[in-house]
Amino acid sequence: MKNPVNPNLEKEQNSLETNKNRNLKTLIKLAIVVIIPLLLCMLPTPAGLETNTWHIVALYIALLLGLVIKPFSEPVITLIIIGISSVFLGTDVTYSGYGSKMVWFIASVTIVCAAFVKTGLGKRIAYNLLTRFGKTSLGLGYIMVFVDLILSPATGSNMSRASIDYPIFRNIAESVGSTPDENPRKLGAYLTMLMYVVSISTAALFMTGMATNAITVSLIDQMLGITITWMSWFKASIVPAGLVLFLGPIVVYKLYKPELKNLGDIKPLMHEGLKEMGPMKSDEKILAVLFILAVFGWMFGGKITVVSLSMQVVAFVFLALTMLFGILDWNDIIAQKGAWNTFVWYGAFYGVASALSKAGFYQWLASFLEGYLKLSQLNGMVAMILLLLMSIAVRYFFVSNSAYVASFYPVILALTLTTDAPIMVMALLLCFFAAYGALLTHYGNGAGIYTFATGYCTQKDFWTVGTAMVGVALVVYLVIGLPYWKLLGLW
Amino acid sequence: MKNPVNPNLEKEQNSLETNKNRNLKTLIKLAIVVIIPLLLCMLPTPAGLETNTWHIVALYIALLLGLVIKPFSEPVITLIIIGISSVFLGTDVTYSGYGSKMVWFIASVTIVCAAFVKTGLGKRIAYNLLTRFGKTSLGLGYIMVFVDLILSPATGSNMSRASIDYPIFRNIAESVGSTPDENPRKLGAYLTMLMYVVSISTAALFMTGMATNAITVSLIDQMLGITITWMSWFKASIVPAGLVLFLGPIVVYKLYKPELKNLGDIKPLMHEGLKEMGPMKSDEKILAVLFILAVFGWMFGGKITVVSLSMQVVAFVFLALTMLFGILDWNDIIAQKGAWNTFVWYGAFYGVASALSKAGFYQWLASFLEGYLKLSQLNGMVAMILLLLMSIAVRYFFVSNSAYVASFYPVILALTLTTDAPIMVMALLLCFFAAYGALLTHYGNGAGIYTFATGYCTQKDFWTVGTAMVGVALVVYLVIGLPYWKLLGLW
Repeated sequence: MKNPVNPNLEKEQNSLETNKNRNLKTLIKLAIVVIIPLLLCMLPTPAGLETNTWHIVALYIALLLGLVIKPFSEPVITLIIIGISSVFLGTDVTYSGYGSKMVWFIASVTIVCAAFVKTGLGKRIAYNLLTRFGKTSLGLGYIMVFVDLILSPATGSNMSRASIDYPIFRNIAESVGSTPDENPRKLGAYLTMLMYVVSISTAALFMTGMATNAITVSLIDQMLGITITWMSWFKASIVPAGLVLFLGPIVVYKLYKPELKNLGDIKPLMHEGLKEMGPMKSDEKILAVLFILAVFGWMFGGKITVVSLSMQVVAFVFLALTMLFGILDWNDIIAQKGAWNTFVWYGAFYGVASALSKAGFYQWLASFLEGYLKLSQLNGMVAMILLLLMSIAVRYFFVSNSAYVASFYPVILALTLTTDAPIMVMALLLCFFAAYGALLTHYGNGAGIYTFATGYCTQKDFWTVGTAMVGVALVVYLVIGLPYWKLLGLW
Repeated sequence: MKNPVNPNLEKEQNSLETNKNRNLKTLIKLAIVVIIPLLLCMLPTPAGLETNTWHIVALYIALLLGLVIKPFSEPVITLIIIGISSVFLGTDVTYSGYGSKMVWFIASVTIVCAAFVKTGLGKRIAYNLLTRFGKTSLGLGYIMVFVDLILSPATGSNMSRASIDYPIFRNIAESVGSTPDENPRKLGAYLTMLMYVVSISTAALFMTGMATNAITVSLIDQMLGITITWMSWFKASIVPAGLVLFLGPIVVYKLYKPELKNLGDIKPLMHEGLKEMGPMKSDEKILAVLFILAVFGWMFGGKITVVSLSMQVVAFVFLALTMLFGILDWNDIIAQKGAWNTFVWYGAFYGVASALSKAGFYQWLASFLEGYLKLSQLNGMVAMILLLLMSIAVRYFFVSNSAYVASFYPVILALTLTTDAPIMVMALLLCFFAAYGALLTHYGNGAGIYTFATGYCTQKDFWTVGTAMVGVALVVYLVIGLPYWKLLGLW
């Protein structure tokens, strides 16, 4: 029965109910994050590990559970966990990650994206390419590839990059009458789906193409002792990742054909966009130069020995110079909430992972797992493919690239150590499929969440086309990538 | 001659001119920040120092010049300097501070202030006290003391604290017709001036009363090897700092009398405020409990040895718990731009200062200065007072408490080491006068800038009353503080 006096009362009660449900949900999630690590702590320390190390393992598990189950947003649950565990483990374990160069590397490459948005340089590149080459829907797809490719070495967040490119392509779709509500399949759905595919493909091409890559690299360094530089990543990726990137528009075009094939003349629209932007500003020019310098720095900095031009330092200097030239100011920096979010959670995670690495935990984990799984009895290549497929299959359970890598890669890497798999090949496959695997779902990466949210495509479309692309990538890497890496002498 | 066609043209040209001037000014400031450290690097390394240490000294000087001259805002110039110097000195020196507990201590205690603002707890305390005790202008002053005193142990930014209290008192002034434009001296000017005095007095009372205190403590630890805990600070401050706090309202009342002495009935106004706030929310109650726990933690945490409850950990746990109970969320955390500003610049500074401390630079500096100044020939007490007065006199040149402590205290502390001054007494005096000295000017501390900006008082008023209060504090500390510390057995 409705309340005749206050028709809003029912609504209010409903919202109270929702609030209660939400609180209960948070509590249950929180309980899982707290209880599992506590139980671990109470178990007797496994043989071969020191008690203190075992407690750090529990902290690591707590952080990962927090990241995956998310009773609160990532940085908040992270700060809560490290705050409270500092009481028991001391601040050396919990805070030290914030002083590490990998953490600042991720912060730098994701913050610097703001410069491309703020100056409009990314938009200008897109408009310019489109006035010259945009004629067919397939051609449009390749322009998207070009635009994203050009930006990808120096925009360390593929989601930020997509948010530079995508609005321009959506604008074209809308100009031919394809909106999420009307005729989505005419053009917009194709471009939206392709945006995610392209974004993930460029993410795999460069170490600085997506924030997660640095996490993968640091884990591989800590657990396998293999240092992957920006240039060695690029050398290994250029052929297979280049091919996957090239195939993207065709595959999506075949599987998810736009109704409109011929675009007609989109030049006026693009010229209008350029006109609105006015002539190239000095900020854009400076950014373009800094951008090229940064890419050079990443390519050749490692060869210079007089000074330290590691990829981390190059990224930080790139950011520093955008500030020096007044392109970014403090407001722009602090407004990159996503970057600071990652800084906070990853900083804690990195410090704890480093402590575990130093304490010899990962070797222990490998021999522990070997005791149960006996992967060493398998042929090395078979084991490798098995592990790769396993690492891809679990993607459905992770709502973020980085959380997936941070929590599942330690296990896969530990398992790798128990096999005869060629370690370097396995490491590289894990590097690249950290990106591709995200295509299985629409929530596997920020760019997927961003493009899916537009409403142009259904979830089924995303999952179908995405899965097909993962298949394409698997074939390319196993059939072409592996022989290519052999040729390079990587294994 | 005016341009008849476009009257705005002249204006535009003027603004272009201003822009140019500003750019030129920035360039000159930047040149100073760059050239002086570069020149230092080019000089031959002084005897007794390693070349690498000398280069870190140059980096330290660059950071301090950046902080004091400010070609860009603090975090921006800091990121620029450490970004570029990482190329030459490596990231261990430049980034490591961000992983230190002192840096997170300052971040925690300044971020947590947001909880008092967000829940309205600070405001409620003020309203409640004012309904009971507000009758005369002098009485009102003592209520301000109480309110600020209650909040000060756990609001690590005295400026944030002032921004909780001040609006309420200003509201009272305006309700009796005293605004910055009309009758400022009737009541508002007195309350505004007093707010600054009270804010600085509570800042000296607790180590967690102002962000700078942690910087002072960490420098004293690094340079003199004296560890000052939250409790030892409080024991030493309670008598002299308590007395200065108590004297504040009277001194300001005498020197800067409000025209209105009797307030009449302000209760209705306060009741209205309380009514608007509604009954105490659960967030406020939880915060009140956490707040009391934090103060207990700071008081007695050091005595617990089973777990680590250092003041830094207590601060972090306090912050963590406000998040756990949903009082603060990630948006609140990242919105504390001031706290992150400090985090960025102080993190770099702390890392570099630690590197210098490890390399033995401060001992070297002390013996170097002794070679010129021969302070060791003075009586210890005379030297101490001389150094204290010197440390206060230079305050006119610093626009921020923290920049002053970070740049000038290393010199004063190095000089202290060359004298016969009682080291502990000197250390404590420097701790407390880091706060009081800010009263000399209106720009010496954020709370001064905040209250001065209201326009109730002239600069002359601020400087006159402030200087008098510094004099009062000097007398109190030298006449009462010193014997009291002797009684405590501190020297």
